[in-house]
Amino acid sequence: MKAAVLRWAEPKDMKAVLGLIQELADFEKEPEAVVISEDDLLEHAFGGQPKFQCFVAEKQGQVVGMALFYPRYSTWKGPTFHLEDLIVTQKERGTGLGKALYTKFIAYAEAQGVRRIEWVVLDWNTHAVNFYENSGADVLEDWRTVQMDQAAMRRYLAKENENI
Amino acid sequence: MKAAVLRWAEPKDMKAVLGLIQELADFEKEPEAVVISEDDLLEHAFGGQPKFQCFVAEKQGQVVGMALFYPRYSTWKGPTFHLEDLIVTQKERGTGLGKALYTKFIAYAEAQGVRRIEWVVLDWNTHAVNFYENSGADVLEDWRTVQMDQAAMRRYLAKENENI
Repeated sequence: MKAAVLRWAEPKDMKAVLGLIQELADFEKEPEAVVISEDDLLEHAFGGQPKFQCFVAEKQGQVVGMALFYPRYSTWKGPTFHLEDLIVTQKERGTGLGKALYTKFIAYAEAQGVRRIEWVVLDWNTHAVNFYENSGADVLEDWRTVQMDQAAMRRYLAKENENI
Repeated sequence: MKAAVLRWAEPKDMKAVLGLIQELADFEKEPEAVVISEDDLLEHAFGGQPKFQCFVAEKQGQVVGMALFYPRYSTWKGPTFHLEDLIVTQKERGTGLGKALYTKFIAYAEAQGVRRIEWVVLDWNTHAVNFYENSGADVLEDWRTVQMDQAAMRRYLAKENENI
């Protein structure tokens, strides 16, 4: 942990943030899935209406980890935060940086008064599952994420319009 | 579908919206889970910084269904929408209202240019799972939702502080 600083991400960090995002996509076996650009991240984080917030871990001038999150809303509990990505670059894993970023995010969320934090984990990533459960989080077994991409949305709408 | 109108929710609808939220919690076998109030919904939907948007289905002057959603962010794809609740009251199920609300949400999301929409479904709710898959959505089998509530966040932070 020596010489690691945790701080809010700045515009100059978005290149490194994109690098970490790509590294995670590679790990999750979806290397082609990242279509976002550095300019997108700059606009979405620092444009008029920020779409996410991000802490980074910096070590010897390099961004080596990040915790990226945004507000969500539970109709049961009220305002929540969603932790979209918690990433530490491969060569810095096992040094406690991931836990430090996780703790910083939780401390910030608690201070903001959100009633819940949430995120998703791959069920085969047992290291992560165990880490989260040991920290007191609940891994929900019976909920499934459902997604529809832009192309599928358009196919669905075209079909519905035919049926009218 | 006769006499059903789909429109944006207004402040006067929040009492009925809360009723639908409670009805869904009962169906999902968590009747005690709803801690939010009508005043919370009013503040969160129509206060300075809206935390969600909502379409309602109105029939003979009664709100009988809703589609409630908010923006999210994918570090792979960019801006997305999350459909938090798609609810039709018990006695109006099977009338096509759920599909009409779903279509209205998808059409709005597509028009806004989001690159993905997503939501969650209970894996034992096979009726819903089939409906979503038939519409062209993907039900992801290997992702799990993780949640930590406010009490667990405080326990975690207290323990971490002891360790420092």
